[in-house]
Amino acid sequence: MIDLSDVRAAAARLSGVARRTPVLSSEALDERSGGTVLLKSENLQRTGSFKIRGAYNRISTLPPEALARGVAAYSSGNHAQAVALAARLVGTHATILMPADAPPEKLDATRSYGAEVLTYDRYRDDREAMGAELARERGLTLVKPFDDPAVMAGQGTAALELVEDAGPLDLLLAPVGGGGLVAGSATAARGLDQATSVLGVEPEAGDDHRRSLESGRRVMLPDIPATIADGLQAPTPGALPFEINRTLLEGVVTVDDDETVRAMVFGFEQLKVVLEPSGAVALAAVLFGKAPEARGRRVGVILSGGNISPARFADLTG
Amino acid sequence: MIDLSDVRAAAARLSGVARRTPVLSSEALDERSGGTVLLKSENLQRTGSFKIRGAYNRISTLPPEALARGVAAYSSGNHAQAVALAARLVGTHATILMPADAPPEKLDATRSYGAEVLTYDRYRDDREAMGAELARERGLTLVKPFDDPAVMAGQGTAALELVEDAGPLDLLLAPVGGGGLVAGSATAARGLDQATSVLGVEPEAGDDHRRSLESGRRVMLPDIPATIADGLQAPTPGALPFEINRTLLEGVVTVDDDETVRAMVFGFEQLKVVLEPSGAVALAAVLFGKAPEARGRRVGVILSGGNISPARFADLTG
Repeated sequence: MIDLSDVRAAAARLSGVARRTPVLSSEALDERSGGTVLLKSENLQRTGSFKIRGAYNRISTLPPEALARGVAAYSSGNHAQAVALAARLVGTHATILMPADAPPEKLDATRSYGAEVLTYDRYRDDREAMGAELARERGLTLVKPFDDPAVMAGQGTAALELVEDAGPLDLLLAPVGGGGLVAGSATAARGLDQATSVLGVEPEAGDDHRRSLESGRRVMLPDIPATIADGLQAPTPGALPFEINRTLLEGVVTVDDDETVRAMVFGFEQLKVVLEPSGAVALAAVLFGKAPEARGRRVGVILSGGNISPARFADLTG
Repeated sequence: MIDLSDVRAAAARLSGVARRTPVLSSEALDERSGGTVLLKSENLQRTGSFKIRGAYNRISTLPPEALARGVAAYSSGNHAQAVALAARLVGTHATILMPADAPPEKLDATRSYGAEVLTYDRYRDDREAMGAELARERGLTLVKPFDDPAVMAGQGTAALELVEDAGPLDLLLAPVGGGGLVAGSATAARGLDQATSVLGVEPEAGDDHRRSLESGRRVMLPDIPATIADGLQAPTPGALPFEINRTLLEGVVTVDDDETVRAMVFGFEQLKVVLEPSGAVALAAVLFGKAPEARGRRVGVILSGGNISPARFADLTG
């Protein structure tokens, strides 16, 4: 579906658009894990998460007639800001469906990139149907958060940069929501070196990808997972990411919310960076020994986002 | 006293020891300031501040007989951890005088680098006299936090890296406590390009350097300045830094504690990094228009440290 050449092509498009985020390290983390841990700090990315990589790669490759009409997306989180900024950079118009009760700073951030924001009631409305209807009515192209080859290829550029900047990896860990980031990451890392193992990391309460890999088919959780990792609440794997992940992943491990909070505190105290819960799960997996094969190995970790208010951070960690 | 060649020599010693910290940027900051702002993130440095640069440069150039006896320092803050780590890296023993009521995490961090920590009563004891006596009794070399050419040259390497990595600067802002960081920064930046203006930034309540530059002689404030910027509470400029700063600085501007807190929040929300109060003052100066000449210019800012607990951060910003 996608391969390393797609990730490389995305990297060329993203050059000068996405930041080449720094690779962080910590002696405390190396001591604790027994490995050499290399942290790709996508929380320092434009819009505060890796999402701009996929959104821009998708939008910038749309045909002119689609760009003339504009793009749409639905998101309560980081994908909204990413599509808004990518649309502005490409020179097209974005319409974003967001829950009416989303944090005001997320609504404001999305508007600040020039997007038109429409709100929905997250308890009453079907946002997918609304998004599809909006796109059809206005002739907009719907930019999906993960279930799209161009989005996954773009998201894989973070792992590509990590290996280019920090050297070969024995193991790579990435958060799993719909599964696009880990699919792109595995495509990049294993395309560069087939011997690299790639592990997805999910919140314990939302282990649909883990269950799906075990059963060999996409499992749908009965409810929206109850976890603080609000970017990883997809109840079932994306169809296209799952096709990649069933082939390329070593497996999926899980962390509970308490471990995620402790990883956020570790990020604050030891790394001096801000991580939102979803952005901290792969670090939590390393900190709490969920990847025992880390010992003695070179381990890449994607810190995927840092969009959390100081007040919410204090609530969770206090 | 020191010149660019001393800073370059320090940089060679620090290669592979200090981290080459990333240069961060923010579109929100550029829009707000009207300039192109380049942030040298020394909060991401080993030990959480720039202090390792000066301490290592000093200790690594001691003669073998001094290294055989060991080093001493007194510090309530970042200098303690820096001397402890530098001593361990060079292979000598460090004895650090710290206030008995210092935050437990700072005492622990200093001990974790292998230093012997002795405590004093900050209200009753004269730490300078105690440090001098300790050094004399045990034959230790006292590593000063700023009033030492090797320390200032080492501290100047952050500015050297900033210009090497981000290109020429019209203006550079650095925090001022004893004045060593800004003295080393000005030596580096103006040694590379005489046209670069360098501004020091002090807390409003501790403006001894500003007053001293205005009066042409070192002013001693009557009390320890009441400011949250606990790394910038020196009541008078260091003698050697002042000699440099009176020649090389454009001036010193001040920020109040409220502006410093708002810069810490900006760092958290927009940059996704943790700044302690002392580490945020130069950013505050840019955010609050204390350097109006920033408009249309390329402006370097030293983010000097990030050692603050989540609880203290929440207290200050909540």
